[in-house]
Order: sequence, then structure tokens, then C-alpha cells
Amino acid sequence: MKGLAILGSTGSVGRQALEVARAYPDRLRVVGLAAGRNLTLLAQQVREFRPAVVAVGAGREALEAALSPGERPVILEGEEGLLQVATWPEAHTVLVAVTGLVGLLPTLAALRAGKEVALANKETLVAGGELVTALAGRAGRLLRPVDSEHSAIWQCLHGGGREEVRELVLTASGGPFRALDRGALAAVTPEQALRHPNWRMGPKITVDSATLMNKGLEIIEAHWLFGIDYERIGVVIHPQSIVHSLVVFRDGAVLAQLGVPDMRLPIQYALSYPERWGPLCEAPDLVALGALTFEAPDEERFPALRMARDAGRTGGTLPAVLNAANEVAVAAFLGRRLPFTGIAEVVARVMDRHHTVYRPTLEDIMAADRWARDLAEGLIAKVTP
Amino acid sequence: MKGLAILGSTGSVGRQALEVARAYPDRLRVVGLAAGRNLTLLAQQVREFRPAVVAVGAGREALEAALSPGERPVILEGEEGLLQVATWPEAHTVLVAVTGLVGLLPTLAALRAGKEVALANKETLVAGGELVTALAGRAGRLLRPVDSEHSAIWQCLHGGGREEVRELVLTASGGPFRALDRGALAAVTPEQALRHPNWRMGPKITVDSATLMNKGLEIIEAHWLFGIDYERIGVVIHPQSIVHSLVVFRDGAVLAQLGVPDMRLPIQYALSYPERWGPLCEAPDLVALGALTFEAPDEERFPALRMARDAGRTGGTLPAVLNAANEVAVAAFLGRRLPFTGIAEVVARVMDRHHTVYRPTLEDIMAADRWARDLAEGLIAKVTP
Repeated sequence: MKGLAILGSTGSVGRQALEVARAYPDRLRVVGLAAGRNLTLLAQQVREFRPAVVAVGAGREALEAALSPGERPVILEGEEGLLQVATWPEAHTVLVAVTGLVGLLPTLAALRAGKEVALANKETLVAGGELVTALAGRAGRLLRPVDSEHSAIWQCLHGGGREEVRELVLTASGGPFRALDRGALAAVTPEQALRHPNWRMGPKITVDSATLMNKGLEIIEAHWLFGIDYERIGVVIHPQSIVHSLVVFRDGAVLAQLGVPDMRLPIQYALSYPERWGPLCEAPDLVALGALTFEAPDEERFPALRMARDAGRTGGTLPAVLNAANEVAVAAFLGRRLPFTGIAEVVARVMDRHHTVYRPTLEDIMAADRWARDLAEGLIAKVTP
Repeated sequence: MKGLAILGSTGSVGRQALEVARAYPDRLRVVGLAAGRNLTLLAQQVREFRPAVVAVGAGREALEAALSPGERPVILEGEEGLLQVATWPEAHTVLVAVTGLVGLLPTLAALRAGKEVALANKETLVAGGELVTALAGRAGRLLRPVDSEHSAIWQCLHGGGREEVRELVLTASGGPFRALDRGALAAVTPEQALRHPNWRMGPKITVDSATLMNKGLEIIEAHWLFGIDYERIGVVIHPQSIVHSLVVFRDGAVLAQLGVPDMRLPIQYALSYPERWGPLCEAPDLVALGALTFEAPDEERFPALRMARDAGRTGGTLPAVLNAANEVAVAAFLGRRLPFTGIAEVVARVMDRHHTVYRPTLEDIMAADRWARDLAEGLIAKVTP
């Protein structure tokens, strides 16, 4: 029985992680939950899973009032609460499923406390990859990737040594706008961007899938998780989202992990590793699918891949800047203050103006993040009608 | 440096194994070769690789005469010679690449001598699976599968435990006659059957690919190599021969091994395991391929799959009978004494008349093999024009 703490339990990954916990009550015990503002759902989760501790972004009293005295765990608030859940003694594994750079501090705290960290938060590794892997090593020791792509690579890497890897190939659905030209891309709406063809995910990551920035961030994550050079991390468009990623070994053999597009599978593997549990998720039916197709990504129409690779190669604080500018620009797009193609433009302009700090401290990263956000907001304010 | 003995060095797999040995002279040393009748090629191989021992089916003196005194290894003859090469002290790994049941005895001898056996001979496991795995255990201990399909499954199984397997899925190209109806099948010629779309292989196995008997035999092999019930070994038609096979785990995750259709890759992996060596073989280019397609096999037009599964489930001497009758029928087809559809008919009739011996000894297997060959020859003689 593993004690599980979930940071971000009311978000998409957090809710699906609780479905996994519900399916395997003899293997997982939810000992801690943390959420931002959705107190109604959090109260329901507390009633069902009876964790020992809960943290809310704000509204401690309101949550307390929503629960009867017999249902009440320890209730904490703010960043300090998040850190306490991340290091709670009964937690064996901490699922970091909050969105944004807010995931970095509790990840570092959990690792320092010797916890296994199931990492669903991209920004933590993108901005803080050097700090995180200095504590955690590569995927498999304390870090368990939750992204379907990195979970796939992790699973495939069991078939060979890291020094035997010729290339990691991340698959990308290509998003809903794969076939649109640049003119049409400029006119797409948030509603269109949020209609992801295959995956059930939160809005930020769904927009990132449409710009391919999601894949760009995953390239940087893969670099840190698996210790592979950027030159040897490729991307292939695979619209069916069945092959979740591939590893090419130096002998010419390729291992691929396939699965239905269901986040519960990589979430579960991160929690069950080194075991595999069944039967929550179906396996894909290849005959019913008929064909799995592959094409090269168009880095002209979708410049995010190139930008992310450049930021990763430069390193230091530049990936944090890429990530922060992107977060602001995606929010502006969702708020109709920026066209879709403006997202990459804002990110590129903020990156251009950044003076990278190499071997950054946590403070350097946080400062670069704030600087990039401010500059991105300023650039967007200028173009907003 | 591994000492390598190759039984069947002048056949298709044997020649490709020597290409692997040529590519990695610092890792493999050819210490023994055995071949049947192609003395010209065998003499060339001896000159290039300088093994310590060589065995020929017949023609010891002729080989001796073809080699100058300084080039001459120990030259042996007949079955006893084959057994001596299989157990030669400097051989660390024995590649069994002879065709037919003749592979069984030297495989058992090599295993008894503690050799690693790279097994390219299907019939050994089909007829003698119980005897072989009693000595060798499952794939990975002493046995290294060389078939691309079993090599793929073996590679994928590194990603989970055997008790976590939901299903093994063998891929089949479907052969050159995938789209033909029963009437057209009856009229195909040996020349058409030998034109395999993807693989460079010997004539017997190429005809077995066209009847799908090859895949049927592989089902039985997979059962013995991996210890998986017949109910959990499936087959899917995959005309591109890029996905070499797949493992479905109980959590719904699927691992697949992909590669270009080049037998040197699984041969090399059997010899390099647990390492992977490069760069002899290219990796497949998914973007250039565009699509990988999958369909269900038609067991009405290609009854070999069902017959093999039945033989495997019954066990005992029945798989040996299936294999022997098939060998005779394929030879008759290649000799234009039997139509293509007659192959399955002969096998079915021989199987029908067999009284299975359970838990067979080597002698029982040999006797069943002879009985089936005689009966098959008799049946074919009756229908031959």
C-alpha cells in the first residue's frame, strides 16, 4: 500500500489520478490533497478519500465549514500548506499535478524529503531541470514521468541502456490546426483551440498542443528526464495519438509504447512502477484502428518546436523565460487579447530580450520568470485592441 | 569477445550471421561452422573467418581438398560432426540456423554443454519445446530467439513481468497472397510464393509465410519461449513488416518493437544481448513510411493458424506431426507435385490420423516425425498427377 499525496487534485490530471486511486484501493491510499480554488470538488474528494491533510490556495475556513467535524482532515493554506502536503510523512509518492511554475518548489521539497515524485507538471523540469535532476537523478530513481510521451520513453528504455540510445522520438498529434496555413492560423478562436482531437486535458496544455509548444516543452523535459542531448530528441506528427513515443537504439531496433489516449494509463504507471496493474484501461485495437500514420512537423507554421529546442540548448534561465512568456501569451489568447499566432511571436520577442543566467539558482529562475511575465504582459498590452 | 559456432552457415540466416560477425570483429569470433552441401561457399567462409572446427553433411574430403593446408580447420562430417561443433569448447554461443528437425539434437547438446543458443530453427521448439525448455528455461536465460517476431516480443518483455502480460501479438506480413480468394490460391506457383514482399529468407520459410504456417509455428514457439497460454497469443496482419510484434500488458500499455525488415537485426540482438551494438542496421523512417496498417487474419483462407494453435493446445507429439507434414507438403509444392492449397489439406489429414503421445521423449518425437513424413508422402503420391 503506497501513501499518495496529490498536488492539484481538482485539475484534470488530479481528478484522473483519483480515478486510479479509486480503482486500486488495496494498493493506493490517498494521504494528502492540495487544490487551488475549487473548494466544492475538493470537499467531495475529502469525503470520499479521507486524506490526513489538505491544502487550499485560499479559503481554509470555507473548506472547514463545508465538512462536518468527523470528515475534517488537517486543513492548511497557501504555499506553506502545499509544501507540507508535499512532504507529509505518510506520503510515499507525491503527484505534482499543479499547473505552472508553482510546481517547482513543492517538487524540490518532496525530493529533499526522499519522496518519489510523479511529475505531471511540465514547467518544473523546463524551468528547473538542472535543480530537480541534481536532487532526483534521471527518470526511474525518484522521478516518475506522467506525461504520456515521457512515460512511453521511460517504458521503452527498459529495453536497452541509455548509452545505447540513438534517438528519442516524441510523437505529437499535431493538434487541431495541423492542416491550416498561416493565414487561417491567425484567425482561430480559443473554442477551436480547446477542441483537442484525442486527449482529455486542461485548457493551458490543450492550447500548447495546438501551437506545438507542448511538444517543445516536452523536448526540454525529455532532455532532463533521460539525459539525452537535444540533437538526439526528435518529434514526429502522429495524428491518432496511439503511439505515445519511441526510442531508437543504436542497433537499429525501435521500441514504441502504444496505448489508448487515456491519461489514467501513464498516471497509473507512474504510481504502480515497477509493477503494472490492471484492468483499469483498455488496450488499443490495432485492427479497428486500421492505420497509424506519421508525418514530419512543419516548424515554419509551428515555430514553437524550434524555439523550445533553442532555449533548451542555451539552457540557464532561458527555458524558464520561454515557459513564462508562453503561459502569459496562452492566457491572453484564451482571454481573446492575442491572436493564436501571436503566442509564438510574444515568446520569441521575450526570449530575444533575455540575458540568460547560466547555472541559475532557484531565485534566478523565479526572477527570470517574473521578468518574462512582465515583459510579455507589456508586449500584449501594446497589441491588444 | 564471444566465441560463435554457426550451424547452417551457408543458409540465409547463417550467411547473414556472418555479416554480423564481419561487422563486429572485436566482439565476435567465429570458432565453428557447419553446413550441409554447399562446400564452395563453406570453403570461402573458412578462408575468411578461420574457425577452429567445421562440419559438413557429407564431403569431408572434398572440403579438405578445396582448402590449402594452412587454411584447414578440424573437419568433421555427418550428425556427429554437427554435435561436435554445437558443443565445441570455445563456442560461447551456438547459432542453430539449420532448417528442419535436424536442429533439435544439436540444440539439446549445446544446452546440455551450457552454451547460449541463438535459435533460428523453428522446428526445434515446435516439435521439441517441452524438452528444450526443460533444459533451457524461457527466453533470456540460455535461449535467444532469432526470429524477428520472437526477438521483438523478447525485447518488449523487458518492460514488464511475465505475469503482467495480457497478450502477445505476433505480426504477419500476410504473405504475397493476402488478397487472393480460395480459387486463385489453388493456382499459385512456387515462383509466386517465393516472392516475399519484405523479407530476404530461405525458400521453405518463404512458402510458410505465404500459407501463414510460418506464423502458426511461431505461435507454438512463442508459447514455449515465453510461457504464455495459447489463448493469449494473437496474430495481426501488418503488411509493411515494420512492427515485428507487440506485447499487451495488463495495464493496457502496449510495447512494440519496430525495425526495417532485415534479419541481421534480430540475429545481432541474439548475439549481442544484453548489449546492443551499432551501427550495422538502419532504423526505419516512420515519416517516409507514412502509415503502418493492421488487419485481422482470415483463418478461412489461411487455415494454418488454426491448425497450429490446435496442435499446440493438444501438445505432445502433435506439433511435431504438424511440422513434419508441412515440411513434406511444402517440398512437394516447390517440386510442383502439390497445389498451394494442398499444403494445408495434407497437414490437416495427417494430423487427423495421428494418435498423440503426451510428454514425449526425443524418440517419440522422432518417430512421430517419421510417421508423419511417410503418411504425407503417401497422401501426396496419391494426388500427384
